[in-house]
Amino acid sequence: MKNNFKVIAFDADDTLWDNEIFFRQTEEQFCNLLSSFSEPEATMKELLSVEIKNLEDYGYGTKAFMLSMIETAIKISDHKVPQNIFQQIIELGKKQINQEVNLLDGVLELLDYLSQKHYKLIVATKGDLLDQERKLKKSGLEKYFHHVEVMSNKRQSDYRKLIQHLDIQPEDFLMIGNSYKSDIEPVLELGAFGIHVPYHILWEHEKADENGEHPNWMKVKGLAELKAFL
Amino acid sequence: MKNNFKVIAFDADDTLWDNEIFFRQTEEQFCNLLSSFSEPEATMKELLSVEIKNLEDYGYGTKAFMLSMIETAIKISDHKVPQNIFQQIIELGKKQINQEVNLLDGVLELLDYLSQKHYKLIVATKGDLLDQERKLKKSGLEKYFHHVEVMSNKRQSDYRKLIQHLDIQPEDFLMIGNSYKSDIEPVLELGAFGIHVPYHILWEHEKADENGEHPNWMKVKGLAELKAFL
Repeated sequence: MKNNFKVIAFDADDTLWDNEIFFRQTEEQFCNLLSSFSEPEATMKELLSVEIKNLEDYGYGTKAFMLSMIETAIKISDHKVPQNIFQQIIELGKKQINQEVNLLDGVLELLDYLSQKHYKLIVATKGDLLDQERKLKKSGLEKYFHHVEVMSNKRQSDYRKLIQHLDIQPEDFLMIGNSYKSDIEPVLELGAFGIHVPYHILWEHEKADENGEHPNWMKVKGLAELKAFL
Repeated sequence: MKNNFKVIAFDADDTLWDNEIFFRQTEEQFCNLLSSFSEPEATMKELLSVEIKNLEDYGYGTKAFMLSMIETAIKISDHKVPQNIFQQIIELGKKQINQEVNLLDGVLELLDYLSQKHYKLIVATKGDLLDQERKLKKSGLEKYFHHVEVMSNKRQSDYRKLIQHLDIQPEDFLMIGNSYKSDIEPVLELGAFGIHVPYHILWEHEKADENGEHPNWMKVKGLAELKAFL
């Protein structure tokens, strides 16, 4: 793959730091709260369905997740869930919002290396704006990045806007992220480049088939491997 | 005031379109829902206090507002609020999210005029990213703006980051908005410029004293007046 990019964009959640694992932990505790009304598996299925239904109204992030948990609790218990459960859902959400940030292996090493090169480095992430800024600050990684782009979604049209805003051409843009569906596929369609670094768990809604044939992307096991290519 | 700015940034809510009025309507309906537990005035006071307490965790926007209404309902009713109220709060919030966009007087005329000048026009707004993008799309104003900056807050440090990201100097930057506290005061401190266009209602938390002496800002009654200065 070529390496004369002008801008390298990093996804944040599960690319720079752990994220999905905290959602899984909160989901598990949420299922426990509702265990007298529904089996965990059925609760999870309903929660996912409520979350996907609400994506258009709420977008991504912890506040959306909290509101969907509340709606799921009402639905699953047929309006019979005890009052204190709502309070506990709010507390679970706030705990997740204030979670520590654990950097993934190889992040610091790669960013140190890239910061000595000519690339403009940015963060391009979807999710909640405040969540992402808070995590970036806690991560200590702010200094490596020119700025952060929080995107309401990561479809082709969202990346087109981002590339225009950066005043570059698609072939000058490399996206690095853990979700083929959100970080790789839409940038390939635009003529930009992608490097897929899978994380050990992936949200159900992010699962997608990969186009192994396309010349503009590759998959690596961890960020440490990238130094050889950039 | 000078007028050779490189970037003119518009606040969105209550500067380009109505916003606070919808929050007031939702608050009124929320107070009605809780009227058997608390007088409207006391409910409003408690809601404001919960919202301000939650600002650091949730930031601004409708989802934050919904979560604070739910928390207030639990608190005010001492966990006795009927189940269906939570469902109704969620519905109130979703209705507000999907509200039509009403442009304020003079917006189209001013943007038409400015788009023929050399300025780069952007939207610089706080609030929820998805909310703001959705409103901009509905407004039909997208074509006038180079891009949208949704900011998690509008303090001096947030504007400093914005101006750096725009690769300009503070004196090249003019902010136009309805909140002296969020749109004018912090940009003056940086050496940038502000035009204050008050809206007929202002959220309690946005109220602030004005520094009438500072040379870098002025107040106008409506956007239509601005053509004479830009």
